[in-house]
Amino acid sequence: MEKLELNPTELINPLVQDLQESDTLAINELSKQLIAQGKKVYKFGLGQSPFPVPDNVVEALRLNAPQKDYLPVKGLPQLREVVADFYRRKNGIDVRPECILIGPGSKELVFLLQLVFEGEIIIVSPCWVSYIPQAKILGKKISIIHSSFENKWHLTPKLFKEFLKNRSPENISKPAFMILNYPGNPDGVSFKTEDLIEIAALAREHNVFILSDEIYGQLHHKGEHVSIGKFYPEGTVISSGLSKWCGAGGWRLGTFCFPKNLEWLADKIAVVASETYTSVSAPIQYAAIEAFKGGAQIEDYLSNVRKILSRLASDCVKILRQANVKVHDPVGGFYLFLDFSNFKQKLNANNITTSKEFCARLLEETGVAVLHGSSFSRAEDEFTARMAYVDFDGASALNAARMVTLNTPLDEGYSNANCPKVIEGVTKITEWLKNLK
Amino acid sequence: MEKLELNPTELINPLVQDLQESDTLAINELSKQLIAQGKKVYKFGLGQSPFPVPDNVVEALRLNAPQKDYLPVKGLPQLREVVADFYRRKNGIDVRPECILIGPGSKELVFLLQLVFEGEIIIVSPCWVSYIPQAKILGKKISIIHSSFENKWHLTPKLFKEFLKNRSPENISKPAFMILNYPGNPDGVSFKTEDLIEIAALAREHNVFILSDEIYGQLHHKGEHVSIGKFYPEGTVISSGLSKWCGAGGWRLGTFCFPKNLEWLADKIAVVASETYTSVSAPIQYAAIEAFKGGAQIEDYLSNVRKILSRLASDCVKILRQANVKVHDPVGGFYLFLDFSNFKQKLNANNITTSKEFCARLLEETGVAVLHGSSFSRAEDEFTARMAYVDFDGASALNAARMVTLNTPLDEGYSNANCPKVIEGVTKITEWLKNLK
Repeated sequence: MEKLELNPTELINPLVQDLQESDTLAINELSKQLIAQGKKVYKFGLGQSPFPVPDNVVEALRLNAPQKDYLPVKGLPQLREVVADFYRRKNGIDVRPECILIGPGSKELVFLLQLVFEGEIIIVSPCWVSYIPQAKILGKKISIIHSSFENKWHLTPKLFKEFLKNRSPENISKPAFMILNYPGNPDGVSFKTEDLIEIAALAREHNVFILSDEIYGQLHHKGEHVSIGKFYPEGTVISSGLSKWCGAGGWRLGTFCFPKNLEWLADKIAVVASETYTSVSAPIQYAAIEAFKGGAQIEDYLSNVRKILSRLASDCVKILRQANVKVHDPVGGFYLFLDFSNFKQKLNANNITTSKEFCARLLEETGVAVLHGSSFSRAEDEFTARMAYVDFDGASALNAARMVTLNTPLDEGYSNANCPKVIEGVTKITEWLKNLK
Repeated sequence: MEKLELNPTELINPLVQDLQESDTLAINELSKQLIAQGKKVYKFGLGQSPFPVPDNVVEALRLNAPQKDYLPVKGLPQLREVVADFYRRKNGIDVRPECILIGPGSKELVFLLQLVFEGEIIIVSPCWVSYIPQAKILGKKISIIHSSFENKWHLTPKLFKEFLKNRSPENISKPAFMILNYPGNPDGVSFKTEDLIEIAALAREHNVFILSDEIYGQLHHKGEHVSIGKFYPEGTVISSGLSKWCGAGGWRLGTFCFPKNLEWLADKIAVVASETYTSVSAPIQYAAIEAFKGGAQIEDYLSNVRKILSRLASDCVKILRQANVKVHDPVGGFYLFLDFSNFKQKLNANNITTSKEFCARLLEETGVAVLHGSSFSRAEDEFTARMAYVDFDGASALNAARMVTLNTPLDEGYSNANCPKVIEGVTKITEWLKNLK
């Protein structure tokens, strides 16, 4: 038989043929190249917690290193108990251990939910980078509601109503899933409680389930995160995990909490999980019990982490606003979504016409790496970018914060002393903007 | 708007609507119920290594507990180096670190390969339980080549030739992937080297790539595993991981080695991985370096594990053959695929007409849990079943084996003394067969 000439393109599932490595990875690669050339790079591109995993959780992993058995696909029963209790305690929501799924990152669980659920998926732009690529892999169509700076980059009851009014008739008759992410990636902003209540009522009325991505919930800077699950318990799936609030992104452990009447969805996701990732790494699951159990050490860690992020965010915002960059006060997480629309003419005059070009030039000329707005489903020519204010030594920043009395906010000198690269990088952005011809 | 009556079936992707929890899980559940009723159960259903993870590998996990960063999607570079070196050393194959993927279990990697590869997937029955459900989830058609007891449950060059002759014309013109698993699950049998050479030549000639699932390769009872990659380097992807030879199934770490000219496939799988599981747990990857690095401790562990499995397997086979059960001498892993066709008439007379009924009755009446042949794509009415001879205390069995000089085989009393439940359970099977009316 004749040997075929190998044409890889024809041998790849058409749904993934155009899929490229994520923009986050691409900017990371470029940063590395610049560093290799001896350039100083301000790494505001990748959204990773700078803080170490709390000591007692690391110790729990050490103790559980010999755990070697395959665990149940839905997760270790003891872990599901404490996760349920965690969300009960933190969010005032009635969560049942039987309705909790433990996955290798909440990203994988979002993917499986998109795979299993037969129906419309609705997202709000700017949105997290992976929702849409996941839908593409699965050949699903996603509906996007576009928000704006004026709406604080989030869904408002008004936007939601407009969307519901204009839905295609085939979708109206069927349940859908809407993904909300708050405190938000890429924006750090969250919902007002009255908006959550109104959105919940609309969702209930129109048979829209909510996948409430609350992975930054515990990083609300004042510890005052409110879940929409409180107002729409029967239709909300809450997504979270260890990656952000526990500084353990690399550990890969995410959690989904289902309401009782979506248990069939949890069950079917578990069936698919049993044919794919099987279960989450056993030592990691045992260690996670210590994290979700909470207690004094975890609360001390969280309150110091929040204080640091809050102080640093407001220092960054101050510098940026003085330079005429539009940005909202963040309430949680570690992102700012920067709006450079005030510089549009100047940028265009410098041959910068898209957010991608903006970020490439900024990185090249200042060493500051931020992620362009089009990665978050914004229009190509909208000058927005996500900045992750995480380029500092989280361990020593935590130690410094611990020197301050628990309920006292950190003073103005804190960020300069403990997160100098972040302040320097933000200043570089403003100087670059000022010097644009 | 009117509240819809929720009909879960309509809200589930039709491809996964009929997907049920795996038979392995189902038999585990039934076993648990029986144990709860106070019954003694011989757990030969689940294929988990009974041995602890080697001490130096556990220690490496302890040391790396604080590792918290997201790792590169293809895997930690140092780990990919030692994995490449491991397969070079063990299999005499030229493996490049750049072509290695680390995944959360090789099962997930097989799934992603099926997702990304656009073309025919060929498997050989009896086959591992997950290949076909994975294809169903993805809406892919799988071609099955049926083997038999006479062919030692494996592909022969003759069977392969017949299959290739009868392929549909649309498939003939396109590359395909054939999955081979050896030493085999469910059978413990492997290929003769001359058959591997002939199969490799046929595959090359007919543009069939091989996914060579060698997860039990290091558990070849004589340490003499030969990979087909040796004879078909440009077309073979080798699958392996920590789960079996390192006793770390619950850790979830699998490896895929791609040849240079299938690098495009590895790259695309990595892109999909970046939108799903992201990367494998960081502490686990660092610990895995110690496992794949090898050295005296690992070799000592492996040679004792092999000695135990070899001794135990031949003791089981002896008892079973004396009772007229058809079974091949296994060469690796920890499974026997039992053929009860000699009892067909008697079984039918007892209202047992399928392998599923056979296993249910056996479990009920003797407490012995084995997995019915139809789970491995055998005909429903073929009386076959997989027995995993793993229900013993691996740690103490290892200690006992270490008392024997390294190159001396274990004596006849070893299994009775150290794996009594396995011998007892096998004997129960034979007594049950004898007492069938």
